[in-house]
Amino acid sequence: MKQDRLQQQISFIVEIDKMKDILRRTNLINDKRRENDAEHSWHIAVMAVLLFEYADSEVDILKVIKMLLIHDLVEIYAGDTYAYDKEGYKDKAKREASAAKRVYSLLPVDQALELRGLWEEFEEHKSTESRFAAAMDVLQPLLLNYETEGISWKPHSVVSSMVRERIGMIKDGSSSLWEFSTNLIEDAVKRGYLAE
Amino acid sequence: MKQDRLQQQISFIVEIDKMKDILRRTNLINDKRRENDAEHSWHIAVMAVLLFEYADSEVDILKVIKMLLIHDLVEIYAGDTYAYDKEGYKDKAKREASAAKRVYSLLPVDQALELRGLWEEFEEHKSTESRFAAAMDVLQPLLLNYETEGISWKPHSVVSSMVRERIGMIKDGSSSLWEFSTNLIEDAVKRGYLAE
Repeated sequence: MKQDRLQQQISFIVEIDKMKDILRRTNLINDKRRENDAEHSWHIAVMAVLLFEYADSEVDILKVIKMLLIHDLVEIYAGDTYAYDKEGYKDKAKREASAAKRVYSLLPVDQALELRGLWEEFEEHKSTESRFAAAMDVLQPLLLNYETEGISWKPHSVVSSMVRERIGMIKDGSSSLWEFSTNLIEDAVKRGYLAE
Repeated sequence: MKQDRLQQQISFIVEIDKMKDILRRTNLINDKRRENDAEHSWHIAVMAVLLFEYADSEVDILKVIKMLLIHDLVEIYAGDTYAYDKEGYKDKAKREASAAKRVYSLLPVDQALELRGLWEEFEEHKSTESRFAAAMDVLQPLLLNYETEGISWKPHSVVSSMVRERIGMIKDGSSSLWEFSTNLIEDAVKRGYLAE
């Protein structure tokens, strides 16, 4: 019985290796290749460790980190939906719900429930933890875009109003990080990284 | 003052994007390219969330996860030292100590001390958290090697006794995961993935 449980956990661990092949629209700072979901998830988890002092409400940091580590797993089957892809957002929820069922069912029931619950909480964007986690999820690509002089904004015709709307998610979790982001966008426009 | 603090944290977050360019010797299961440090760090952090029930002593899981997320940051400047590279291990400690100084000094002092302390604790391999973290760090490449039929063992002439010695680190943290790993190695030899 215990052996079965470990075998289920190992199967899940092996399956999620696929996160390293799911490409996002954001580019890395140095070599400018596209970032993948595993790299992104690692980066935002470290960010949460460093920045949770800026959360507007007290957060359970362990919960935030777990949420960030697993919130993109559904993309193994549902793919990454670009933040500014209106068409893709139409069936995003449906695609991801079906993907969640598939990926989490690999785990023992108790862990499937815990991780799926964390993902649902993240998606609902209501709890203080999910709001702070979302702030990390949105701030990270903003930083990479700024550092690469808007390399992934330009080909997708992203303009400043779109990015300003997007970072509303940061305001829900941290007013000081939202202020920082607002200034960064202003600077990106000034420097010509982002179209006004 | 507060602005300075955030700016230091952001500089660190931008700098560690380089982890995505530090290649390890392990290959990914699907596309067989080499794994990088950011991907590896993410994978072992998720493993810790799922497997900490197998730790032989009670562990502070938040501490384990933080340790795993940051323990390879020194490789941004010191490079990855292959587990079976005897030559590279000779000056590994010196190279990494110098790298630690460089990377952590980007942070505000309190956070530099915390993260550097976690890295040192990991390296000392004495606390229950560091022993369980090391078990994750060693089990993950074992799984990837097994799943890729030993793709990164073969060109480096790795034989089963070397891998058995290496997984001694798993035994220090979890006897049941060590038992699982021993069986996996035996099976890898049987299947011809790993030379006896």
